[in-house]
Amino acid sequence: MSDTSLTANHDNLMADNKARAEAWFQSLRDDICRAFEQIERDLPADAPAPADTPDGTFTRTPWQRTDHSGAPGGGGTMGLMSGRVFEKVGVHTSTVHGEFAPEFRDKIPGANESPKFWASGISLIAHLHNPHVPAVHMNTRLVITSKWWFGGGADLTPVLDHRRTQDDPDSRAFHQAMRSACQGHDIADYDKYKAWCDDYFFLKHRNEPRGIGGIFYDNLTPSADDGGFDAAFAFTQDVGRAFLSVYPELVRANFETAWTEADREEQLVRRGRYVEFNLLYDRGTIFGLNTGGNVDSILSSMPPVVKWP
Amino acid sequence: MSDTSLTANHDNLMADNKARAEAWFQSLRDDICRAFEQIERDLPADAPAPADTPDGTFTRTPWQRTDHSGAPGGGGTMGLMSGRVFEKVGVHTSTVHGEFAPEFRDKIPGANESPKFWASGISLIAHLHNPHVPAVHMNTRLVITSKWWFGGGADLTPVLDHRRTQDDPDSRAFHQAMRSACQGHDIADYDKYKAWCDDYFFLKHRNEPRGIGGIFYDNLTPSADDGGFDAAFAFTQDVGRAFLSVYPELVRANFETAWTEADREEQLVRRGRYVEFNLLYDRGTIFGLNTGGNVDSILSSMPPVVKWP
Repeated sequence: MSDTSLTANHDNLMADNKARAEAWFQSLRDDICRAFEQIERDLPADAPAPADTPDGTFTRTPWQRTDHSGAPGGGGTMGLMSGRVFEKVGVHTSTVHGEFAPEFRDKIPGANESPKFWASGISLIAHLHNPHVPAVHMNTRLVITSKWWFGGGADLTPVLDHRRTQDDPDSRAFHQAMRSACQGHDIADYDKYKAWCDDYFFLKHRNEPRGIGGIFYDNLTPSADDGGFDAAFAFTQDVGRAFLSVYPELVRANFETAWTEADREEQLVRRGRYVEFNLLYDRGTIFGLNTGGNVDSILSSMPPVVKWP
Repeated sequence: MSDTSLTANHDNLMADNKARAEAWFQSLRDDICRAFEQIERDLPADAPAPADTPDGTFTRTPWQRTDHSGAPGGGGTMGLMSGRVFEKVGVHTSTVHGEFAPEFRDKIPGANESPKFWASGISLIAHLHNPHVPAVHMNTRLVITSKWWFGGGADLTPVLDHRRTQDDPDSRAFHQAMRSACQGHDIADYDKYKAWCDDYFFLKHRNEPRGIGGIFYDNLTPSADDGGFDAAFAFTQDVGRAFLSVYPELVRANFETAWTEADREEQLVRRGRYVEFNLLYDRGTIFGLNTGGNVDSILSSMPPVVKWP
């Protein structure tokens, strides 16, 4: 084959990969939203819940992005729900493209060769009424510059001190689910991803972890010998499936447990740490706000009510 | 005089200047705390206020700082009050010294010549129960490296949209007070400091100002011909006096006004913008958290209750 047809083949392959990844993120979003809406319907009528609040359903709001050059830059769908179980949960997908502004090119792999980028992903943060149910975050994405890579992870944040331990049944189940997602994928190093998560979701100014951990990975771009795109994509799909298998179960395991005013107060104060992390450290939040991302969608991660007493 | 005695004279002079500045910040703190406590006592019994809450008085908590080198690095006093008028107000003084960590030396004037620093200042943020009373921030400081300078300012944040205008009586009174502080000081350029404040207290990601402005100045280090240290110190004192003359009056002008649940809701959402600003943009907050400042004292700027609905 000529160089030209090699390039054309590569372009076709990447176009197909993009389409497959975007379709996956959207179908995972649909499955998660369905599972969360079912939880709303399944909370028993006599379970503890805010008064006069109907079962939640997701509201989806599409948004468009303008690239820093002024050209159309893709967009996404913000999905939000407030109900009897979920006080505020955002499940968002986006597929954006454009050119990195000059000040970001040094920070992004492959962006100095060409400033063009394409990225697609799903991101989720859930804050629940019941302080016995842990908050959670999950995000996976495919980024393409002159290179390509997958990244993401999921981590759990119990909001009551006495539940924020590694021995808690919720912690064990969550870690086990993430370990399972890594098993069967030679490219996925669970121990490394678990340590990476502990390292990343850490509030340096308070010298304390955000939650009990999970997994975090980035720049995952296996060589052709190691399975290439398909291997990284298959692993990323299993991270989403593992999340979907474990988190609804953790919600159901706790959602009938009665809570006290003191539990609620502890939850609201703990949520302040979540805000501090997201605005001081979270690369996705800061990067999104600095690159003209959708502010409402990015900051939908903020908890609905927070206290710094 | 020999060079040695010139240096000794300069050292004595700077020691005297440090002592005068520190004493001023502390006496201003005392005056402000007294004025705020008097407001708590002066709120009429039938005025709108949270139930079962006594008049507030300040609690002072001293803290010590360890320099990044491990040596003692000064400290400060955190002053906090929660009462019937002030939902949460922090009035803090600190006097710290040490050596800048290598990663900060490029960012600080004079720190590349010598990493040693000394800094003293007062900082204040007030969040009130009554949504008709604007939140406020004031901070002035003296910083000494191989150079010295004063910086600071004050800015007002009305939390109700219909009061967050330049024509509001509170806005006009606050601006007039800051203008007065600049008048009579040839080194103080009110128009420049007002514009600097507007520029600094701006949420880029939302393309909106934090409040209605005030003044902001930094690196104020007049030459001997322009009055030197004494001129900058005198101006900085007048900024503090202007704050003390105007803000308690704004509280009293509004503190009997009844508010609705919708007003309170608007206040709690608006406070989210305050959090976003302080954690995403505020140099003092980010610098303090990065340099081993007192976390409780720095983050006492966080509002007591916040909503991101």
